Amino acid sequence: MAPPTRIGLAGLAVMGQNLALNIAEKGFPISVYNRTTSKVDETVERAKQEGDLPVFGFHDPESFVQSIQKPRVIIMLVKAGAPVDQTIKTLSAYMEKGDCIIDGGNEWYKNTERREKEMSGLSLLYLGMGVSGGEEGARHGPSLMPGGSFEAYKYIEDILLKVAAQVPDSGPCVTYIGKGGSGNFVKMVHNGIEYGDMQLIAEAYDVLKSVGKLSNEELQSVFSEWNRGELLSFLTEITADIFVIRDDRGEGYLVDKVLDKTGMKGTGKWTVQQAADLSVAAPTIAASLDSRFLSGLKEERVEAAKVFKSGGLGDILTDQTVDKAKLIDDVRQALYASKICSYAQGMNLIRAKSIEKGWDLKLGELARIWKGGCIIRAIFLDRIKKAYDRNPNLASLLVDPEFAKEIIDRQSAWRRVVCLAINSGISTPGMSSSLAYFDTYRRERVPANLVQAQRDYFGAHTYERIDMEGSFHTEWFKIAKHLKD
Amino acid sequence: MAPPTRIGLAGLAVMGQNLALNIAEKGFPISVYNRTTSKVDETVERAKQEGDLPVFGFHDPESFVQSIQKPRVIIMLVKAGAPVDQTIKTLSAYMEKGDCIIDGGNEWYKNTERREKEMSGLSLLYLGMGVSGGEEGARHGPSLMPGGSFEAYKYIEDILLKVAAQVPDSGPCVTYIGKGGSGNFVKMVHNGIEYGDMQLIAEAYDVLKSVGKLSNEELQSVFSEWNRGELLSFLTEITADIFVIRDDRGEGYLVDKVLDKTGMKGTGKWTVQQAADLSVAAPTIAASLDSRFLSGLKEERVEAAKVFKSGGLGDILTDQTVDKAKLIDDVRQALYASKICSYAQGMNLIRAKSIEKGWDLKLGELARIWKGGCIIRAIFLDRIKKAYDRNPNLASLLVDPEFAKEIIDRQSAWRRVVCLAINSGISTPGMSSSLAYFDTYRRERVPANLVQAQRDYFGAHTYERIDMEGSFHTEWFKIAKHLKD
Repeated sequence: MAPPTRIGLAGLAVMGQNLALNIAEKGFPISVYNRTTSKVDETVERAKQEGDLPVFGFHDPESFVQSIQKPRVIIMLVKAGAPVDQTIKTLSAYMEKGDCIIDGGNEWYKNTERREKEMSGLSLLYLGMGVSGGEEGARHGPSLMPGGSFEAYKYIEDILLKVAAQVPDSGPCVTYIGKGGSGNFVKMVHNGIEYGDMQLIAEAYDVLKSVGKLSNEELQSVFSEWNRGELLSFLTEITADIFVIRDDRGEGYLVDKVLDKTGMKGTGKWTVQQAADLSVAAPTIAASLDSRFLSGLKEERVEAAKVFKSGGLGDILTDQTVDKAKLIDDVRQALYASKICSYAQGMNLIRAKSIEKGWDLKLGELARIWKGGCIIRAIFLDRIKKAYDRNPNLASLLVDPEFAKEIIDRQSAWRRVVCLAINSGISTPGMSSSLAYFDTYRRERVPANLVQAQRDYFGAHTYERIDMEGSFHTEWFKIAKHLKD
Repeated sequence: MAPPTRIGLAGLAVMGQNLALNIAEKGFPISVYNRTTSKVDETVERAKQEGDLPVFGFHDPESFVQSIQKPRVIIMLVKAGAPVDQTIKTLSAYMEKGDCIIDGGNEWYKNTERREKEMSGLSLLYLGMGVSGGEEGARHGPSLMPGGSFEAYKYIEDILLKVAAQVPDSGPCVTYIGKGGSGNFVKMVHNGIEYGDMQLIAEAYDVLKSVGKLSNEELQSVFSEWNRGELLSFLTEITADIFVIRDDRGEGYLVDKVLDKTGMKGTGKWTVQQAADLSVAAPTIAASLDSRFLSGLKEERVEAAKVFKSGGLGDILTDQTVDKAKLIDDVRQALYASKICSYAQGMNLIRAKSIEKGWDLKLGELARIWKGGCIIRAIFLDRIKKAYDRNPNLASLLVDPEFAKEIIDRQSAWRRVVCLAINSGISTPGMSSSLAYFDTYRRERVPANLVQAQRDYFGAHTYERIDMEGSFHTEWFKIAKHLKD
């Protein structure tokens, strides 16, 4: 009989395969299992080809579980929801007191909390671990966000520290996030921020292409240039890459042939819903989600375009010539300033949830573990980490002295870009909602006094005053009527 | 023993009292009950004073229930959530097969569906009925949105038709909405639209006051003037009223003393969450909700204002002189165009839910019953009704020929107002997100192709093409790497 392996992994789609190979490559013998057994053989075969990695395949759950050293730790990478429950049921039947199951999927945090409780009834430990970085990240170093049982985290900390992405001067991209579903929640917000980043880049692309008339070659060069400065990030880099790929099924560049419909998998939606639940404004992330929804209405958009074109309203309203170099520089600044707003929203959402749940999450530490491995990895995250190092109780990234200065330096360009887009008839919902967020947040007095007066007028909801304490109600209708009579 | 009354009402806060008096005034003897019995006496006393109305008070639930003719119908107006369950428990103990309970509160539609099922187990009928119009509406004619048991609706249709607001040439503001929780759902979206209307008015006020330097007297005159045209509505009217009210505790006008913090009660939040759930973009309503959230951060805003002022960024960025008459006209047009977008979002949200639940809701009929009684009542709703009369399957209000023309006529002014606000450093999140919504919806090609290419790059999520059927995946990374090497 073979010596027991160090850890197990169940669920061998590409993400699961890659994470298993990553773990094995770091020197931890790993058992793997999948319900469809061909995936098991495929993984073992890949392990051989990629350097005789210590991956051991099993076709039945019992021998899989029993092959792992005690206390056993098994990572699941299966579809969120019912498949996770099913896999837990299958595996837990063979597991023993003190063993641990880790869900590595994009699971709704409440499901993790329910399962942790159920597992605890079986004396099993449970972790919900966000894994970001896509297939490449899983294989070569993801960002890991484990939350739940601290004891379980300690079992495998040595593995996670080696498997995670390694960032020089910053360490491995993993930390114990907190109790309960905090790992899933943080990963969810990470994805919401990712939606925001992608939308803002798409808007920059749109303005440069549609108004600035930049070619794909020029766009490639702009994004490559940006990737050497403050916007250095995985998403900037792959955007530059995308513009160079030629269509292998026809003429021209592939990006121009891709249908303008964006798919989604639910974490962005959850982020927006949680923001509403927690009374946290997250308009940039919401605008990204709405843009995906509207992108999906391709057929309706085609029809609407016809209606408005026949009314004289073309796609682009003006054919003004713009100074390309100036426009590129403005758009870079608008993108960066909008990004700060988006991250401020995401971080404040995490903080609000942490307070609600008593998770005691460390925002700076989250920025640190996002510096490598994950989709939103960027040099920018280092600035965020430093902002929270300077002041862990920062009300918002916007008022960190360095970010505030950066925004002030960029606000004119930001306003120019949004207005240029508006006057060109194209929309920059992410940039403009970021700007509105900024201009609202930095304003001592907003017109909410009128809204509250209206609420008191028709619903007797009362109001506060700026000059004295207390709650007031006025008979607006009666007084106005008296004045009119 | 007195003859049985026609109907009962439980829960005698102001809304409940007023609705009971309204019902009695229309000639239907009504029994009333409240747990705190002083409210019962208060209601009976008011009924006497307001014209010897047939209102009969009861201090215990049993005699209250037994005083009503069979099949008994009881309207509850108690706080949503647990108090509703408690009231149902109390009353249903004395009710008999075929009797009916109606919840008139702002209840979450799923709670109504759960209760309808529970009631059905007791052979009782159930309705969830949205009631809009505030205290005044309840007393003199609200807009009523009853959903649930059609049989129960038929019991009291004669009462509802008389109690509801009456609109000339349009009839009473009530209709049977549909099955299950549809009445509550429609009322929820009504409230979301109401949030949007209030926010858009607040932004118009802000631009006119902060940039146009209009005095309260001028604002009163502007809103009064607007209330004679396309913006004629309850909210425009009360806004005009608000500007004339002087501060009774100090100098000047009261609106300037009201603290700029807006409260909320949950229906706006639900609307935004449901929109996300149903993949419907509702950015104007979401911007209204976010504005309320940000208004609540008064202390943070005061601090942020200091940070940015010290960095050279004042509340208002430019002291440009504007042509007041032109600005007022532009703002009116921007407000109207934004309103169309907001209603388009709300209507499409209702339609999406109707499809999901099989409710078969009639959007034109909803516009009709909102023409009177409720907070969003407006001449504008007649245009919406007509748009759905012209085409019940309208994809969006935006593409109705008349609305499309109105938007085209107003789009230049709309863009001018949003850009003026942006360049002045104030935010118009509702107007700008409406504009972005419009410019996205009317656009055949949006930059979502780039986002989908990114998703395929890092997550192998595949993409569609504009020129051929099918689902495609490209090894972007490998090809780009090869090109770079």
